[in-house]
Amino acid sequence: MDRIHAFQRAARTEGATERPRWPMIVLRTPKGWTGPAAVDGLPVEGTWRAHQVPLSGVRDNPEHLRQLEAWLRSYRPEELFGSSGCPNAQVLDCVPEGDLRLGASPYANGGLLLRELPVPPLDDHAVPVDSPGATQHEPTTVLGGLLEDVMAATAGRRDFRVVGPDETASNRLGALYGTTGKAWQARVLPVDEHLARDGRVMEVLSEHLCQGWLEGYLLTGRHGLFSCYEAFAHIVDSMVNQHIKWLRTSRRLGWRRPIASLNYLLTSHVWRQDHNGFSHQDPGFVDHILNKSPEVVRVYLPPDTNTLLSVADHALRSRDYVNVIVAGKQPGFDWLGIDEARAHCARGAGTWEWAGTEDGSREPDAVLACAGDVPTLETLAAASLLRRHLPELAVRVVNVVDLTRLLPQGEHPHGMPDSEYDALFTTDKPVVFAYHGYPWLVHRLTYRRTGHSQLHVRGYKEEGTTTTPFDMVVRNDLDRYRLVMDVIDRVPGLGVRAIAVRQEMADARTRHHAWIREHGTDLPEVAEWTWDS
Amino acid sequence: MDRIHAFQRAARTEGATERPRWPMIVLRTPKGWTGPAAVDGLPVEGTWRAHQVPLSGVRDNPEHLRQLEAWLRSYRPEELFGSSGCPNAQVLDCVPEGDLRLGASPYANGGLLLRELPVPPLDDHAVPVDSPGATQHEPTTVLGGLLEDVMAATAGRRDFRVVGPDETASNRLGALYGTTGKAWQARVLPVDEHLARDGRVMEVLSEHLCQGWLEGYLLTGRHGLFSCYEAFAHIVDSMVNQHIKWLRTSRRLGWRRPIASLNYLLTSHVWRQDHNGFSHQDPGFVDHILNKSPEVVRVYLPPDTNTLLSVADHALRSRDYVNVIVAGKQPGFDWLGIDEARAHCARGAGTWEWAGTEDGSREPDAVLACAGDVPTLETLAAASLLRRHLPELAVRVVNVVDLTRLLPQGEHPHGMPDSEYDALFTTDKPVVFAYHGYPWLVHRLTYRRTGHSQLHVRGYKEEGTTTTPFDMVVRNDLDRYRLVMDVIDRVPGLGVRAIAVRQEMADARTRHHAWIREHGTDLPEVAEWTWDS
Repeated sequence: MDRIHAFQRAARTEGATERPRWPMIVLRTPKGWTGPAAVDGLPVEGTWRAHQVPLSGVRDNPEHLRQLEAWLRSYRPEELFGSSGCPNAQVLDCVPEGDLRLGASPYANGGLLLRELPVPPLDDHAVPVDSPGATQHEPTTVLGGLLEDVMAATAGRRDFRVVGPDETASNRLGALYGTTGKAWQARVLPVDEHLARDGRVMEVLSEHLCQGWLEGYLLTGRHGLFSCYEAFAHIVDSMVNQHIKWLRTSRRLGWRRPIASLNYLLTSHVWRQDHNGFSHQDPGFVDHILNKSPEVVRVYLPPDTNTLLSVADHALRSRDYVNVIVAGKQPGFDWLGIDEARAHCARGAGTWEWAGTEDGSREPDAVLACAGDVPTLETLAAASLLRRHLPELAVRVVNVVDLTRLLPQGEHPHGMPDSEYDALFTTDKPVVFAYHGYPWLVHRLTYRRTGHSQLHVRGYKEEGTTTTPFDMVVRNDLDRYRLVMDVIDRVPGLGVRAIAVRQEMADARTRHHAWIREHGTDLPEVAEWTWDS
Repeated sequence: MDRIHAFQRAARTEGATERPRWPMIVLRTPKGWTGPAAVDGLPVEGTWRAHQVPLSGVRDNPEHLRQLEAWLRSYRPEELFGSSGCPNAQVLDCVPEGDLRLGASPYANGGLLLRELPVPPLDDHAVPVDSPGATQHEPTTVLGGLLEDVMAATAGRRDFRVVGPDETASNRLGALYGTTGKAWQARVLPVDEHLARDGRVMEVLSEHLCQGWLEGYLLTGRHGLFSCYEAFAHIVDSMVNQHIKWLRTSRRLGWRRPIASLNYLLTSHVWRQDHNGFSHQDPGFVDHILNKSPEVVRVYLPPDTNTLLSVADHALRSRDYVNVIVAGKQPGFDWLGIDEARAHCARGAGTWEWAGTEDGSREPDAVLACAGDVPTLETLAAASLLRRHLPELAVRVVNVVDLTRLLPQGEHPHGMPDSEYDALFTTDKPVVFAYHGYPWLVHRLTYRRTGHSQLHVRGYKEEGTTTTPFDMVVRNDLDRYRLVMDVIDRVPGLGVRAIAVRQEMADARTRHHAWIREHGTDLPEVAEWTWDS
């Protein structure tokens, strides 16, 4: 302890920056120590056999029973327990009191130390949106500004960190370096940037290490965010399983204080792996998470910059959850102002009236639903095509931010009552749902809903490669042209009337195919598309 | 090369057993070597900046374009290509021929070396089944015998290995040690057993290492099996993703020869973690696998010993698949003789007429479906309760071994035509499906089927703990009593008539609850249940 204190003093008051060699005690004991030395003539204590049940025959084998009794008596229970079976005074005197009790110690019950995270007002970072789709931003770049503010506001408390296996700057969170650096204890070269001994960005190409660091950090009463390539979050599938099981069990213990949620930002997602290709395409972490205890897991797919801010704000303030946020880092259209974004995220799912063609006099002919930034773009482009080519069609556009709202009310705390679901999606009209990940996940969430047989989901179906952004959605039948065809194929009677439009959509896909092979970029009508066009 | 040959000679002809220090060449180069030394006044070559696009402005920045041209010209293309753009003779002379071509070399195209695996006749290992449920076996113990034969038959070829993070013997595959040992290069103590320098059981508590070893082994033209605790297969979620992506892509290349399938035996599964509890309970690896390319993935849930043999036989002989086999290691009833097992596994799903109460004169009133060993036991116990208490009810029992048969025909090569599915499960009768894992997976596979709205699935819903085997199924509503109640609740008109039976079932659950708290073991009527009772 003296040597440890000396190191701490040197670092804290004398400015020492070398990494000390901390003293440690290693107690090495024989495996199965104090257990039977040998059983049935074979050595047990200190051997691999001590990993098994050492005396497996106590019910039938008197010699095993005798050995078990000798073993247990070796702890001298008569010195520890009174005649009634209670621990005696000498034992009870050793039981710690107050904060020294295991469950009352902040070392074991980190929630006791937890302080509110000073998240800045969203208005400080919101992007102005005068009309939907008029401007573009990189969602994670803007989020980086908010995270920088949190970093700055916790500079004294030092209880917020961002971990990640990728380059934090390449995930567009580089604004953090305005306030802190990457934690780095080794030699710093003149060419290095943003490295700091006390940095609170923890960047290391090991998802396991990031996860382990952050779990420990949260369990000891601090806050954090894990930024990760979407596909590679699977690397920690098994680790997050255990954390979720811990949270689920811990929430049922009254004395255990809540801890900050484990927040994942899955960026660099399946739809924009233009250079990395198939190996980097897997949206299944959400599927994995949604198999786990509903009281713990939350999944958000903000469609633009302001909704990402709102979702992140909620996640950073929350307790005892595992929040998964999927959001792209590429420039994308701004659809909602910050007030609308807040309301939309609070609802978790809702209609975008400005995007549809309902006049309120009757039920829509079809619902275009979407979840995720790229599916939202394709859905709005499809809505715009339908408005132009089939103006008489009443189309509703529904965006889902909080995926668990699709679940029945009894299955998840966020589950939507049937009455609300039916009002939003109708009970019998075709719903063409453009989803960010594997399409069957949406079916798994909605199979009990009245209108489920009318639900048609498009999403990623493992057709990946290195190609243009729009070609990825075409390959997986999630593109605007396919969505329009899906509506035409499903609205009763429309197929015959709209054959020319359908053909035009099919031709656009053919044109796309030829164009990208010749030019290596997407069709101008796609690359330069805007909502007003 | 001389030193390497000397080591090999010493080991192969002179019996040397020390692990040599192999020579290796380490070529260390600056990052971004030969690229621009500096861009925009900042150093690039040999620094972290070389990890980015070194010249990002070539379209707009003339200086970047000049640097790019200088860089590319530094490779002296005029010496490598003729005026038509073709590589010149000097380059083409270096192109290897025959087996030295990358794709034709067995080092890169391991399938060229692949030999048929000598799997013994199943009759050598099948357990005799005179009538269903009359005997019990540990399925993996019997499989261990078959694997031992494969090990023995490949003793000369040495192209079959079993890898696993758990104790191979504890997973009941100990018969392997009759033929080979655990690979072990370090010191052997007198107390050690089954260790061998040339052992072909690779046991190491790292799922990652097991997966990596086996992938490399298969890719170089050999065969293997990965035996693993079910819950901890998630540790390799991301690794198996890449292997599946590789297989999916490789299958589309004509010159790439098939390799042996990657076979998982998931044992020590969710329903029998009597001592380990919640941390060891997760049946979601199957969900993860079923998100991937259908041409590659296969999932089998053999309900007893002989079906496990048949499934393993198929998996070990197959090519280019990832086969997941889920099978318990605890004693379980034998339901099918080996010939029936072969036929049942070839069908992948089928009725067990001896278990139901149909007389063939009309459609059944209800279908009890099951997949997995524990759900099959509960389903048969429920069928037996229904036969006793409601003998007038026509009940069909369907067992599913091959989970992908539930998928529509176009979605997976094993997908069942609608006509067959409808005949098996009916289009409008209640189906109570007892499934091994997360119940929504069965909905995700069947949501397009006509009778889907009548399908009711029970399975693991993340209610785990350390408890008795039967309490695990009660906690998750997968128990025989609940299945009977599910049938009573769903067969039209039965609820009113069968209220007394329903109440008896509910009371049995209450009795169970009290009993396990008092005795720490399951109710005798459960623990001692047999099919004839």
